[in-house]
Amino acid sequence: MNNERHILSAFDRDLEAVQAMVVKMGGMVESAIHDAASALDARDDELAEAVRRRDKAIDALEHQINDEAARLIALRAPRATDLRMVLSIIKISASLERVGDYAKNIAKRSHVLGDLPAIPGSGMALRRMSAAVETMMKDALDSYIQRDVALAEDVRQRDLEVDQMYNALFREFLTHMMEDARNITACMHLHFIAKNIERMGDHATGIAEQVIYLATGGLPEDTRPKGESVPRMTTEGA
Amino acid sequence: MNNERHILSAFDRDLEAVQAMVVKMGGMVESAIHDAASALDARDDELAEAVRRRDKAIDALEHQINDEAARLIALRAPRATDLRMVLSIIKISASLERVGDYAKNIAKRSHVLGDLPAIPGSGMALRRMSAAVETMMKDALDSYIQRDVALAEDVRQRDLEVDQMYNALFREFLTHMMEDARNITACMHLHFIAKNIERMGDHATGIAEQVIYLATGGLPEDTRPKGESVPRMTTEGA
Repeated sequence: MNNERHILSAFDRDLEAVQAMVVKMGGMVESAIHDAASALDARDDELAEAVRRRDKAIDALEHQINDEAARLIALRAPRATDLRMVLSIIKISASLERVGDYAKNIAKRSHVLGDLPAIPGSGMALRRMSAAVETMMKDALDSYIQRDVALAEDVRQRDLEVDQMYNALFREFLTHMMEDARNITACMHLHFIAKNIERMGDHATGIAEQVIYLATGGLPEDTRPKGESVPRMTTEGA
Repeated sequence: MNNERHILSAFDRDLEAVQAMVVKMGGMVESAIHDAASALDARDDELAEAVRRRDKAIDALEHQINDEAARLIALRAPRATDLRMVLSIIKISASLERVGDYAKNIAKRSHVLGDLPAIPGSGMALRRMSAAVETMMKDALDSYIQRDVALAEDVRQRDLEVDQMYNALFREFLTHMMEDARNITACMHLHFIAKNIERMGDHATGIAEQVIYLATGGLPEDTRPKGESVPRMTTEGA
């Protein structure tokens, strides 16, 4: 069985190398979330431009991770849980790529917002929301690397808070639009940004769910509202 | 080499079986797109409810496809292009699952829209847009099954038209909102729906790009605007 042991450890080494790329990609995506929110809040066009430019490197890294994952499968022929670990990397990197796109989109919009009336409190609220998502993303990746199901479960629960932040912001934007038609355009942009941040949270949750699935072979009955919530879009009450 | 030939054809048989599941999933997703748009246009709550209910079967099929793909890899140990074909199935089914979610979301919103003022012309425009996306999705999957790069390239180009439809609709909604604040809530919902349809188009394009990537090992230089476009959000001119 020495031979098998040897093969296993070669697989582990290779897996670690690909996982290191995923961690690197995760770090780049976390920076993108952070900087997109900062650029928006500070109306910093240069930083927004940097976020847009850096998205190319994130996309390139996804391709590289896919190639490495395929190489690993072809070379080491992993089975059962090992194979599932590698396959989940493909899904996780696709999620990260998507989140990078959302950050790029926020950066694009922040430039347009520069010419529009400011909506009081929105910058702060969006920063808070994106900080929550940034931490979720970090913890989701940590839970994957460390196979930490409790942490993954925690990420999954925190998505509910992000959904609530989004719903509260939505009602605020609606109020501003109803009060003054000159706020409509700015609120439409800000609402898109809020929605993009909420979707980032969904992707972090998706990564956390991969971790739970890998560890337990299934997901708890769907207690978490899945996909985007549909606010009733009234300004009264919750 | 008889043995290798035997292994190859067993792989082909297994691949075809998984691809048949992808085609089935594709058909379910196309129906979801179609029915979500019909339910919206006809304010048909029962049909909308059916779309929401059927999304569970789409999600279940994605899990099944992932399991089968993993089984195929473990059992047949495909390499090079064969392996890439199988790995692309995982990505394609993830895209289809996402599109199913968007259709479900449209169905959720169509119920809310029942209580709101009608926005002239919006039902027709959204149906046209979703019909375009439905065909894109069908052709993207056909291009995958038939390894038809020309068809995949065609799908990719058609996404530009969908983006244009979205931009035109966006400006229309903005006009209605500015003209009468009572339209704001309905337009916010309709705009979300338009955005969801546009995102479905992005996913169809993603599948088409997988086909091109599988066949050529790369993508043409990115001439297509990637991700969501950011309309300047003015009502004047284009």
